[in-house]
Amino acid sequence: MKSFFAPRGVMVIGASASPEKLGAVMATSLDSSGLPVARVNPRATEDGFVASAAEAAEAIVAMGGQPDLAVICVPAPATALAIAECAAAGVTAALVCSGGFSEAGPAGIAIEAAVKQELDRTGMRLLGPNTSGYFSPGSKLIASFVPGAHQLTAGNVALVAASGGVNHMLAFRFAAHGIGLSLGVGIGTGIDVDHTDVLNYLATDENTDVIALHIENVDDGPRLLSAVRAAAERKPVVALVVGENNVSEFAQSHTGALATSWRTTRSVLAQAGAVIVDSEEQLISAVIGLRSGRLHAESHGSAALITGQAGPGLLIADALASAEVDLPPLAQSTQDTLGTLLPPITFQANPVDTGRPSETFPEVISTVAADQAIDVVGIYGLTEPVLDMVASVRPALAHNDARIVVAMDGPPADIAGIQAQAVAAGVPFVTGPHALADALSALIQDRKVRPRAANFAVSDKLVIANDRTWDENSTKDAVGALGIPTPRRCIAHSREEAHQALTDLSGPLAVKILFPVVLHKTDVGGVHLNVSTPEMLDVAWDALEKIGAEQVLLEQMAPGGVDLIVGARRDPVFGPIVLLGLGGTTAEAVGDVAIRSAPLSPETAAAMIDDLAASQLLFGWRGGPTVDPASLGSVLSTLGGIVATNDWIEEVEINPLRITDQGLIALDSVLITRGEGQ
Amino acid sequence: MKSFFAPRGVMVIGASASPEKLGAVMATSLDSSGLPVARVNPRATEDGFVASAAEAAEAIVAMGGQPDLAVICVPAPATALAIAECAAAGVTAALVCSGGFSEAGPAGIAIEAAVKQELDRTGMRLLGPNTSGYFSPGSKLIASFVPGAHQLTAGNVALVAASGGVNHMLAFRFAAHGIGLSLGVGIGTGIDVDHTDVLNYLATDENTDVIALHIENVDDGPRLLSAVRAAAERKPVVALVVGENNVSEFAQSHTGALATSWRTTRSVLAQAGAVIVDSEEQLISAVIGLRSGRLHAESHGSAALITGQAGPGLLIADALASAEVDLPPLAQSTQDTLGTLLPPITFQANPVDTGRPSETFPEVISTVAADQAIDVVGIYGLTEPVLDMVASVRPALAHNDARIVVAMDGPPADIAGIQAQAVAAGVPFVTGPHALADALSALIQDRKVRPRAANFAVSDKLVIANDRTWDENSTKDAVGALGIPTPRRCIAHSREEAHQALTDLSGPLAVKILFPVVLHKTDVGGVHLNVSTPEMLDVAWDALEKIGAEQVLLEQMAPGGVDLIVGARRDPVFGPIVLLGLGGTTAEAVGDVAIRSAPLSPETAAAMIDDLAASQLLFGWRGGPTVDPASLGSVLSTLGGIVATNDWIEEVEINPLRITDQGLIALDSVLITRGEGQ
Repeated sequence: MKSFFAPRGVMVIGASASPEKLGAVMATSLDSSGLPVARVNPRATEDGFVASAAEAAEAIVAMGGQPDLAVICVPAPATALAIAECAAAGVTAALVCSGGFSEAGPAGIAIEAAVKQELDRTGMRLLGPNTSGYFSPGSKLIASFVPGAHQLTAGNVALVAASGGVNHMLAFRFAAHGIGLSLGVGIGTGIDVDHTDVLNYLATDENTDVIALHIENVDDGPRLLSAVRAAAERKPVVALVVGENNVSEFAQSHTGALATSWRTTRSVLAQAGAVIVDSEEQLISAVIGLRSGRLHAESHGSAALITGQAGPGLLIADALASAEVDLPPLAQSTQDTLGTLLPPITFQANPVDTGRPSETFPEVISTVAADQAIDVVGIYGLTEPVLDMVASVRPALAHNDARIVVAMDGPPADIAGIQAQAVAAGVPFVTGPHALADALSALIQDRKVRPRAANFAVSDKLVIANDRTWDENSTKDAVGALGIPTPRRCIAHSREEAHQALTDLSGPLAVKILFPVVLHKTDVGGVHLNVSTPEMLDVAWDALEKIGAEQVLLEQMAPGGVDLIVGARRDPVFGPIVLLGLGGTTAEAVGDVAIRSAPLSPETAAAMIDDLAASQLLFGWRGGPTVDPASLGSVLSTLGGIVATNDWIEEVEINPLRITDQGLIALDSVLITRGEGQ
Repeated sequence: MKSFFAPRGVMVIGASASPEKLGAVMATSLDSSGLPVARVNPRATEDGFVASAAEAAEAIVAMGGQPDLAVICVPAPATALAIAECAAAGVTAALVCSGGFSEAGPAGIAIEAAVKQELDRTGMRLLGPNTSGYFSPGSKLIASFVPGAHQLTAGNVALVAASGGVNHMLAFRFAAHGIGLSLGVGIGTGIDVDHTDVLNYLATDENTDVIALHIENVDDGPRLLSAVRAAAERKPVVALVVGENNVSEFAQSHTGALATSWRTTRSVLAQAGAVIVDSEEQLISAVIGLRSGRLHAESHGSAALITGQAGPGLLIADALASAEVDLPPLAQSTQDTLGTLLPPITFQANPVDTGRPSETFPEVISTVAADQAIDVVGIYGLTEPVLDMVASVRPALAHNDARIVVAMDGPPADIAGIQAQAVAAGVPFVTGPHALADALSALIQDRKVRPRAANFAVSDKLVIANDRTWDENSTKDAVGALGIPTPRRCIAHSREEAHQALTDLSGPLAVKILFPVVLHKTDVGGVHLNVSTPEMLDVAWDALEKIGAEQVLLEQMAPGGVDLIVGARRDPVFGPIVLLGLGGTTAEAVGDVAIRSAPLSPETAAAMIDDLAASQLLFGWRGGPTVDPASLGSVLSTLGGIVATNDWIEEVEINPLRITDQGLIALDSVLITRGEGQ
C-alpha cells in the first residue's frame, strides 16, 4: 500500500493539456505533493508531456524518484493496456477513477475481466475504478479530482469509504469540525484493493489514531473481520454500514454488487471490535470522541454528564439511555463535594446540573472526573462570556484519568472560536446535545467491543461424522452428545413399539413423524402433542400412518416456557454465523435477531441476549422461567463450533430451544448438509 | 399573549445596579428593544431606578408606553408580592426566570401555591418560572439573560421549548444555518403560560411560517391537541418530544413533573397534525425543509433525488426508505429527457445519479421537477467550481410546482457562502446526506399528517347504559350490538343447560368461567377449548365447578388466524385513546403498539396499522388471513367512540380480536367502569 499512499513518484496516464479534463486535473492536483510527477500522453507535443509509461519512468528517476504509482485517466477500454505498460515500466500501484466497468453492463464486464487478468499477470495493485481517488494531506498528496480536497488539513483520522463521494463528504465534515486527516480513500468498485487492504495498512500507520469505515458491500468477510480485529486491538475503528433498506437496484448500478446483509455485517463488525454508527453525523461525533484516546480496557464504561442547562441535559440523558450508556449515581463523597460547589436546588447525582456555570465550574469538572466509578465526563453548556470552557476542563485533563468530551451551543462565531481552542488543546468538542451523546457512547461502545486477548479455540470434540441420515432424532443425538439437553425419546417402527415407548417414557408424549425431508411436520399433521393414554396413542398412530409415516419419534413433553430459535449456518460473505431469536412470528417480522460470526466462546455468545429488543422475555417475564445466560451461551457456542468445524454441514437449527424452570431443552432440531438446502 | 411578545412597555422588578446580577442583565437586554423600560428597586438611589411598580407604570406612561409586561427578578419568596404590586399598577404579563418553586421541595411548593393564588386573584398571566425567557429578534425584544441571544436575527421560524436552555440551543443552531426567528420562548416550569397559549398566539402570527415545539411534559392534553390542530391547518408544526427512556428522576428535578408518556404524546401530536422528529438535528432539518412552504395537500407525497455522487445518494436513499419516503420511478418521458442530458452509464430512474454535474445540471433539475408524479426534489452534491447550485435550481423554482431542497458538502468556507446564497434565494439548504433525507421526509410527513377538514362526529348510537354487570358476555353483547362480530354463544347455569348449548351451537366450543372479576381466566384454569363431545363437556364442567364457576359461557370456536389486541381507555393526560397491537408477549415486550386519541374516524383508525413494526403479519403472512383495514378501522373507531361517549367507562378491550378468513371476530373482551381499574 505504500506505493499508493507514500509513492516516490507518480505518472499520470492520459494526462491532458485541456485543464478541465480528468487527466489534467489529476496531474495538477498531484503536482502540489512535491513528488516527481510525469504526464503521459502519446499525442501530446507540448512541453511537460512524455509519450509512454517507459519514458515517464525514466523522467521520474531522473527527477530523483521511483515510478511507484500510476494514475490512469484513459477510457475504460484502454485501461488494461495502460496497466501492462505501467507494469513493464516498474509501476506497482495504479489508481483508476473512471467508470465503464462491470457496473455498465456486458461490455464493461469484459473490460473489467481483461483488467483483472492484467493485474494477475503483472502483480500490479489497482485502486478503483469508479472512485474520486484519495488524499493524504500530511504529505500534500491529493490524488483526487475534487478541487476542494486541497483545502483539507492533516490530522490523525483516517477514512476508508466505499464511495469516493462519501470519502470527500466525510473529509469536509471533519474539516468543519476543525479536524484533519491522515488519509482518506474511496475504494470505488474495488476490483482489487479493498477496505481490508487499506485497513491493514492503517492499523500500523503512525499518523492514524482512529479509523472510520464506510461500507456498502463486503466480498471476503472473514478477511475483513480479521483486519478489523487486528486494527481495533491497536486503535478505535468506527463503521457506517449502508443498506438497512432494500436499495439494491440503485446500489447495484453504483457498485456492480448486491449489498451484503446489513444486519449481519453490523453484528459481525461489532463483534470484531468496530464501533457501529447509524449515520454520517454519528460517525463524525464518534470519531471526535475517540480520536483523543480510548477508555482504559479495564474501566467500567460509565459516564457522567455535567450540564449548564437542564433542558439540553435531559435531551442528552435521554439519548444516552437509548444508547444504553449508564449514568450511575456519583459516589457520596463526590456528591458531598459538589454540594459545596453548587447551589442547593440543582440536581447533583448524575447528571450534574450546575445551573448557570459559575467560577466553581472547573472544580465541579475535576470533582466529577475524579470519581472512581466514572470513566468519561460529558460537559454541555451554552456559551457565556464568563465561561472559558477549554480552560475549565484543563485541570481535570491534567490530573484525572477520566476522558472528557465537551459540547457547546451559542452564536456561530463564538462556537467557531471555542472549537478552534478545543482542537488545539486536544479536547474532543462537538455542537449540540445529540452529538455529545453520540461521542460519549462511542467511547463506551469502543471499550465494550474492543477485542479481548486470546482467540477462542474450538474444541476438537465438535467433529461430527457424516455417517447417518440426518433426521430429527439423529440430529438430537448429535447435539445431545455435545451437551445440549434433548427430551427423552424413542423411535417406533410399529404400533407395538410405540405402546412400549409410552410405557417406558411415562408421562405425556409428543408423537411425531420421523422422516429426513419433512421439515414442516406440523403443517402435514405430523405432530401429536400431550399423548398420555394408549387410546390417544392409537389415534395419533392412525393419523401418522395415514400420512405415510414409517418411523415415529416419541418424546417426553417438556414443561412450558419461553421458546427460542437458535442456529448456525454458513453466510455467503462471512462464513459460519450463529443466530439467536425468540420464537413466534412477531420476532421474525420485526427482525429481532442477534447474529455473531463463529466460532465464538460461550461468554461472547451469552452476550447475544443483550442484542434482542425483547430480551426481557427471557428473564422471568410474568412469572415465566429465567434463562441461564451461561447455558444459552454454551449452546450457541456449540452450534457455531459445529458449523465452523464440520465443512459438510450447511446449517444446524434448534427450533424451539425452550427455556424452562429445569433449564434449556431442544424440542426440535434440523441439520442440513451442504448442497442440500440450496 | 401580546402583552408578553409585543408589549408597549416593560418594568424590571428587582433591577440591579450590579451589572452581573440577573435584574441588571435583563434590564440592559430589554433596553435594546427601544421600548420604555423602567427599573424597579426600592433600595436603589441611583438615577434610572424607581422605587415601586406603581412608579414604574407612571414612568412608562410618561415615556409614551403602557406597562404591559413585568420581568420579575426577585427571589422566589418575594414573587407573589411583586405580582400583586405589578397587577395593581396595570401590568398584565409577568416573566419569572428564577428557580426555587415546586421543583425545589416543600418550601418551594408553598411559594408556588401563593404565586398561583395571586395570578388567579389578579388575572395576571405568568411565563416561567425557571426559564431563561424569550426573544423576538424582529422587534429587538430580547427578554433573556443569555448574552448571545442579541446576535439572533429575525426570520419566519418560531420556537416554543419546554426549556429555556433548549430554546436558546435551537435558536443558535438555526443561526448557524443562517435562519432567523420570529419568536423563541422557553416555557420553563410553566405554572401558567404553557405551550398551548403560545401556540395559539403563533397560529395567527403573520411573522411565523413554521412552528417548532420542544415538549417535556403535557398538562392538558386535549387543549394542546386542539391548538396543534388549529395551528397545523395554517402552517407546519414540528415537535420534538423528550422522554423515550426513563429519565424521570432528573426530569422531575427540572420541571417538577413526571414526563408524560412519550409514545402516546408522539402518536397523538402526529394525529393532530405535527411532524414528529427524533432529535434536535432532525428538528432543524425538518424546519428548514418546511419554512419555504409545504407540499400541496392534494400531492402524492412522492420525492425524487438528484445526486452528483452515487455514494452519498445511496446514504440518502437508505435514510429515506427508513423514513418510508417513496422514491417512485420517474415517468418514461422524464427518463427519456434525462437520457439526452446525462451520460449513459448513470442511474436515471430515481434516484437520478448525474455523475459529476455538468452544464446540463439546471435542465436535469427542471426535468425532474416537472414530472407530474414528483412533489419534492432533493438535490445533493459536493461543491465544485463549475457548479452554481443556487443558480441551477432557479429555473425549476420559477417554472415548476415541485418543492426543492438542496444539500451540499465541501470546504467549510465554500459551504457558508452557498448557504448564504440559498437562504437569500429562499432555497431550503442543509449540509450532509442525512439532513437532506430529514428535510425531505418532513415535507412529506407534514402533507400526510396535516389535519383534513371536517372533524369526525361520533355516532350517538354509541351511548351504552350502565345497567348490568360487565362480564365477558355482557361486554360482547354491548360491542356486538355496535357491529363488532362476536362468536355465537350461550350461558349455562347447569350441566344440562351446557349440554343443550353443545347441541344448539354445534361444532367445537370454548367453555369458560363467567365471572366479572376473573380477568385472567386462563391462569385459574377457567378456559377449556375445542370441547366437541358430551364427554369432553363433562370433563370441562367438572373442572369449572371445582374452581367455583356458577355461570359458564359456551362459545363456538373461531377459525385460526392472527390475534390482535385492540382497546380504548382514558389516558390521564390526553383523555380517550385507542390502542392497537399484535397479540403475544413479543409485541408487548418490544412495545409495538399504535396509539390515537379518540374519537376518530374509521379511516383515521385504519391507518394505525401502518404504525406497527410487524404489520406484515396482518397481510397474509405465510398463507395466513389478510385483514380488511376498513373493518379493523371501524372496530377501533367504535371502541374509541365508546370511551369518548360514555363517561362511566374507563376502558374497553378486545383481546384477542382475531383476523380470520371470515373477517374479524372478538374472542374475549373486558369492560372496566371508572374507578374499578384504579
